[in-house]
Amino acid sequence: MKALVFDISLTVKEIPCPQPRNHEVLIKILFSAICNTDLEIIKGYMGFKGVPGHEFVGEVMTRSSYLFGKKVVGEINCSCGECYLCQTGRKTHCPNRTVLGIQDHQGVFAEYIVLPEENLKIIPDNIPLTSAVFTEPLAAAIEIFEQIQIKPSQNVYIFGAGKLGLLISQLFRLNGCLYTTFDTNEVKVKKALETGINASLLSSLGESDKAEVCVDCTGNLSGINLALSHLYPRGKLILKTTVAKSEKIDLNQIVINEFEIIGSRCGLFEPALSLLSQGLVNPQPLITAIFSFNEILKAFETAEKPGSLKVLIQH
Amino acid sequence: MKALVFDISLTVKEIPCPQPRNHEVLIKILFSAICNTDLEIIKGYMGFKGVPGHEFVGEVMTRSSYLFGKKVVGEINCSCGECYLCQTGRKTHCPNRTVLGIQDHQGVFAEYIVLPEENLKIIPDNIPLTSAVFTEPLAAAIEIFEQIQIKPSQNVYIFGAGKLGLLISQLFRLNGCLYTTFDTNEVKVKKALETGINASLLSSLGESDKAEVCVDCTGNLSGINLALSHLYPRGKLILKTTVAKSEKIDLNQIVINEFEIIGSRCGLFEPALSLLSQGLVNPQPLITAIFSFNEILKAFETAEKPGSLKVLIQH
Repeated sequence: MKALVFDISLTVKEIPCPQPRNHEVLIKILFSAICNTDLEIIKGYMGFKGVPGHEFVGEVMTRSSYLFGKKVVGEINCSCGECYLCQTGRKTHCPNRTVLGIQDHQGVFAEYIVLPEENLKIIPDNIPLTSAVFTEPLAAAIEIFEQIQIKPSQNVYIFGAGKLGLLISQLFRLNGCLYTTFDTNEVKVKKALETGINASLLSSLGESDKAEVCVDCTGNLSGINLALSHLYPRGKLILKTTVAKSEKIDLNQIVINEFEIIGSRCGLFEPALSLLSQGLVNPQPLITAIFSFNEILKAFETAEKPGSLKVLIQH
Repeated sequence: MKALVFDISLTVKEIPCPQPRNHEVLIKILFSAICNTDLEIIKGYMGFKGVPGHEFVGEVMTRSSYLFGKKVVGEINCSCGECYLCQTGRKTHCPNRTVLGIQDHQGVFAEYIVLPEENLKIIPDNIPLTSAVFTEPLAAAIEIFEQIQIKPSQNVYIFGAGKLGLLISQLFRLNGCLYTTFDTNEVKVKKALETGINASLLSSLGESDKAEVCVDCTGNLSGINLALSHLYPRGKLILKTTVAKSEKIDLNQIVINEFEIIGSRCGLFEPALSLLSQGLVNPQPLITAIFSFNEILKAFETAEKPGSLKVLIQH
């Protein structure tokens, strides 16, 4: 099968089709999408080599599966189910896990993948496939609401109006709270405003303006210190940024202000599909371009441009 | 009155007695104690100049007060009561506050102080004054339990068997959970074991040993990274260390492991007095030495020694 392979560089190659083992099924990829993590991976993040990609919709090809012929999305963490973390409700943190396109598991920028049957969710008929491909990042956005209580009376600052920042913003809009999404990029702020998000240029934020909850999805190393400087004492900072470096942090301010910093990663697919199916989250305005698989290198070039949001690939 | 004054160095001087204003009362200091914050202050922390010290027991001298003649302890944050943070239950974070011996308020290493009447709590008769002087640091230890739920089924690592670490350890012992208190100093570990704390040398902790809750009260910059390396995914790290520098932190690990980092500072006096009064927390073994006020410079020298715990001053 044809696949995009990352070694030192990105190349499209013929590689063997993956074979399902144990409880896995074979899935034909219909659409995939490029995530910031993919862009970090091709810079060396996680030391991953092979086929990247983890956002997809596909069709199950394994005849013996009850999902045969169904269009599905899939949870990217493949866990052992037996360790302490799996047994205590933390399967996405299983130390024995593989992660689709990120860790020891060939990803979705290919014709086929394999995943455990239990990782798959059938896509409701009324969700367009180009929206369903957002299920995984939307689940990651929803994870925030699994982790902490957001009170509708609280004010919230979201830093970063990128792909993830805008999905998160749509969720805060549903909560009814007073949120503002900040970005330094005028094009992104304009785009966010067009999609009904309460967005603003970062330069409009006063030095002493503060929020009860801040979300850092800037994707920049400096995002955490920016967000902390706009957090009320006893406020909560949700950290979504993953970058390949360490940052200096003033620990005193965390103690003195009793800040709470909460790292946030993967989330649940069911509520994501529910919100997409009800039309309460609409990811369509976040699509910058759709490329055919033959143009996947061009798709990556587009995804790397500063004003870009989500780039899809039709397989 | 005689007072210990910090300017560039520490000196005992004659200075004017403070005058109570508005709702303040005059308090004669009976005992004071040296906190790590005091030791940081005389290294330049907070840029404080004047009389340091905030742990005390005293007697109210203002005749018009209902507390006249009573032996009291006192909340160190003097808040405005009117700002957004005061009105939302965060008086210890009031931006207009003064802090006894730490910020714009003369401290307790003197004959007299003034504090608002509402900051004071009467010491129950059955608490020895040399135990009551631990009310403020014990309240800071109790703050952890105001901030997060500690489940008795969880395992907890406490890093640092110093003054604060041992008070915190006594509280975790009361919770019934499986806790261990680690220190690199053999004398401190031995002392902790003698007082019934489940203490151990840090070198006994395996590289892959992990806890659901970690508490950093090492007082060292490196404490946070040590604690994070022993935290389970979705675990909680309570940060008690305040030091005058920034530390590099790997933000990825916070996101990937969905760690929660919670800064923790001052706490409530009522539960501290309740636990002391019932004999459920016993700070007596934490007293390294008691000096008279005339020997206060010697008291500071003793407090700075590595094996020292709490140093008291009798006024």
